[in-house]
Amino acid sequence: MGKEFLEGLEDIGFSGNLYAVNPGLKSFAHYPTYPTVQEIPRPVDHVIISVPAPVVPRIIEDCVAKKVRSIAIFTSGFSESGRDEGRILEDKIREIISDNSTRVIGPNCMGLYCPSSGLAFYAHSPKKKGELAFISQSGGLAINFIELMDRKKVGFSKAVSYGNECDLQSLDFFQYLADDPDTKIIAAYLEGVKDGPRFIRVLKEAARKKPIILLKGGTTEEGVRAVTSHTGALAGSLAIWEAVFKQIGVIQVKGVEELVDTVLAFAYLPPPRGHNLGLISASGGLSVLYTDACIKKGFKVPILSDEVRTDLEKIIQKVGTSAKNPLDLAATFFYSELIGQIIKLVDTDRNVDALLLQISLEYIISELEKYPEYGEIFNQAIINAKKAVRKPFLVVLPYSIDDTKRAQFEEVLMASGIPVYPSVERAATALNNLIRYRETKESVN
Amino acid sequence: MGKEFLEGLEDIGFSGNLYAVNPGLKSFAHYPTYPTVQEIPRPVDHVIISVPAPVVPRIIEDCVAKKVRSIAIFTSGFSESGRDEGRILEDKIREIISDNSTRVIGPNCMGLYCPSSGLAFYAHSPKKKGELAFISQSGGLAINFIELMDRKKVGFSKAVSYGNECDLQSLDFFQYLADDPDTKIIAAYLEGVKDGPRFIRVLKEAARKKPIILLKGGTTEEGVRAVTSHTGALAGSLAIWEAVFKQIGVIQVKGVEELVDTVLAFAYLPPPRGHNLGLISASGGLSVLYTDACIKKGFKVPILSDEVRTDLEKIIQKVGTSAKNPLDLAATFFYSELIGQIIKLVDTDRNVDALLLQISLEYIISELEKYPEYGEIFNQAIINAKKAVRKPFLVVLPYSIDDTKRAQFEEVLMASGIPVYPSVERAATALNNLIRYRETKESVN
Repeated sequence: MGKEFLEGLEDIGFSGNLYAVNPGLKSFAHYPTYPTVQEIPRPVDHVIISVPAPVVPRIIEDCVAKKVRSIAIFTSGFSESGRDEGRILEDKIREIISDNSTRVIGPNCMGLYCPSSGLAFYAHSPKKKGELAFISQSGGLAINFIELMDRKKVGFSKAVSYGNECDLQSLDFFQYLADDPDTKIIAAYLEGVKDGPRFIRVLKEAARKKPIILLKGGTTEEGVRAVTSHTGALAGSLAIWEAVFKQIGVIQVKGVEELVDTVLAFAYLPPPRGHNLGLISASGGLSVLYTDACIKKGFKVPILSDEVRTDLEKIIQKVGTSAKNPLDLAATFFYSELIGQIIKLVDTDRNVDALLLQISLEYIISELEKYPEYGEIFNQAIINAKKAVRKPFLVVLPYSIDDTKRAQFEEVLMASGIPVYPSVERAATALNNLIRYRETKESVN
Repeated sequence: MGKEFLEGLEDIGFSGNLYAVNPGLKSFAHYPTYPTVQEIPRPVDHVIISVPAPVVPRIIEDCVAKKVRSIAIFTSGFSESGRDEGRILEDKIREIISDNSTRVIGPNCMGLYCPSSGLAFYAHSPKKKGELAFISQSGGLAINFIELMDRKKVGFSKAVSYGNECDLQSLDFFQYLADDPDTKIIAAYLEGVKDGPRFIRVLKEAARKKPIILLKGGTTEEGVRAVTSHTGALAGSLAIWEAVFKQIGVIQVKGVEELVDTVLAFAYLPPPRGHNLGLISASGGLSVLYTDACIKKGFKVPILSDEVRTDLEKIIQKVGTSAKNPLDLAATFFYSELIGQIIKLVDTDRNVDALLLQISLEYIISELEKYPEYGEIFNQAIINAKKAVRKPFLVVLPYSIDDTKRAQFEEVLMASGIPVYPSVERAATALNNLIRYRETKESVN
């Protein structure tokens, strides 16, 4: 793993000095090695430790003597192992750093990711900078989330995988990021916390300043057992967590998908004024099912105002379609210039707070066989319409016959600032979280 | 659309005679045309009508005179339009066929798809034959579902898009398919029914013979309004539908995704004996979240038996992993020969009824950079293990960094009889439906 960390730092373009430390090797990767941290000829800001667990305390002593500012311990086999020797080693680390200024992230973690200062914890991590921060107890999930958001064109200010919290805890990162000028949205994956009352105070204060979107692992008895094996945290009861998060204005999500979807909504959309959706669909059957799904998520799909309907009916072919809401465009879907007009008209309707366009990939693909340029024309029509739209505008593009083509469409639309969701349920849930946040803010202010 | 139908029939390999009818053209596509159906020189089994609505009754009369056995009317603009002229035209069709043996599907539908007899309703539809039937009120949804199941290597016996039910109703298709020897599983999308009591009798009888997996559109007030615009059906109240379906042993699903997922489980898996899952994961964080998700869906993730755990601990690296259940394989995930052994060991555990393997695509892809052949080796290890596994075995392969690569992995695994799901929630829901069906069967017998 030492190589992986070095490669990650080189690849993202870390501009400071990198030193390899190993007492048994002359060189590591293409770096000359130093037998100890103390023997590095210049001051050291940050150390990443990837050695067997029993050796870790000795390295920490070495770092403390060198006055290293921060350490990330990748090594696992500490308190999360459930074994006494692991717990004792972790206590030992805490003891070594207790009286000085060196701070420790981990053990059992990936450490820091910060594209703007060239920090990364895996090779080929995204270089894109952004305003999203991620605090994750799990390293695997941190990598997973960074990659997922990169696909959605959302860049990071900072991310941290913090593992066992032997020194720095999640609350320290929340506190820091709440005041970090580069961070606009804070997302987090927590399994448990060490200091409940202080954690809640810090989180409440942070939630006043920025949206906090939080995924809690270990919300069932068996999940708590899994947490114990994973990071050794105390996961606590679901009911208590839910009540606390709600009270302090934190948006709790239920899984990785909802985390990604909700962050996407916060990054791309203004919060809608209310729950009234304008639903534009290419298929009668899907327009019915999408309406059902939105209503079940607490939205309304109101009949459009008479003026807008009259204008729409001039555009939409009279047969096999509906201009009421949901809009069933049927064959009109193949006239991209009309779709643009329709989107803009629905946007003007006073009964509508947000627009949701469903795209049927199989229709587009069947059209591509005859007109290979149709995909580009279609996307451009949507993108042009979006520029004129004032209300939140979402696209639902379900996975269907061709995931490669779907990914291409998704990428083009997202690069133009249109959030694309794979299902109406996921879009509606994300939009709901955005509305919930606005409502909480308004009730506080 | 006439061309689209002809192309669909040619492409799927219809071996009978095809005739084009049009009074104004000498030829259509590359077919000589007949001015009327009656003037076709040989008997006609089936007619597909795609002409403006006002002309349809005249064509029906022509077909009746020719003693055509069945007709599918693609044309819309009948009762679903909400306009009087549409309702009158539909009544007129019903009147024309009332005293004779010609039967009508539609109007406002796509008609019949039957790969074994070379019938199709769109160009390039799948040629694969199978044991799945689909009854759909919506044509768009029928195409969507056929394409989705084709990707999952599930072939069709028959599918019908039946629209407005002016003559043949959904219950006629259920009745037929219940006794069709080529059909093992019946899936359906309904918006409403015309003859409630008879429909329920027929469905109950059919559900005794075969699993029926049903998606009901129009389960909210606004959804019902959308149904009215789409097929003009009476959608009825959700509570009544749900109660009826439950009572007669029909598996009701909530959306297209659950429909696809559930059919996939029925097509690929034996029903599990109970709700105890063996969860094998590559990431500690995901193993926690997957456990939470499965428990919330009514499953258990029990601690494995001592014997199996002892054997597993010999294989799984001691550090950073857990062999309890959920299994957190961490780095062991990169040793494909070990994964195979682990899967087979978990399969032998008496506490486990079904196995769920989570694959982290980003780990596999990072490995591919160093060992391009690793993907193939990994898949082969899973496929070989699956051959030895006796319990239901599912893979969860989330969409992550590369949809094209994901589709390749999914295709290879599914071609070997392993159902692949994009999320743990979707896998668990499908498995639940499979268990529910077994339990209903057992309580009846």
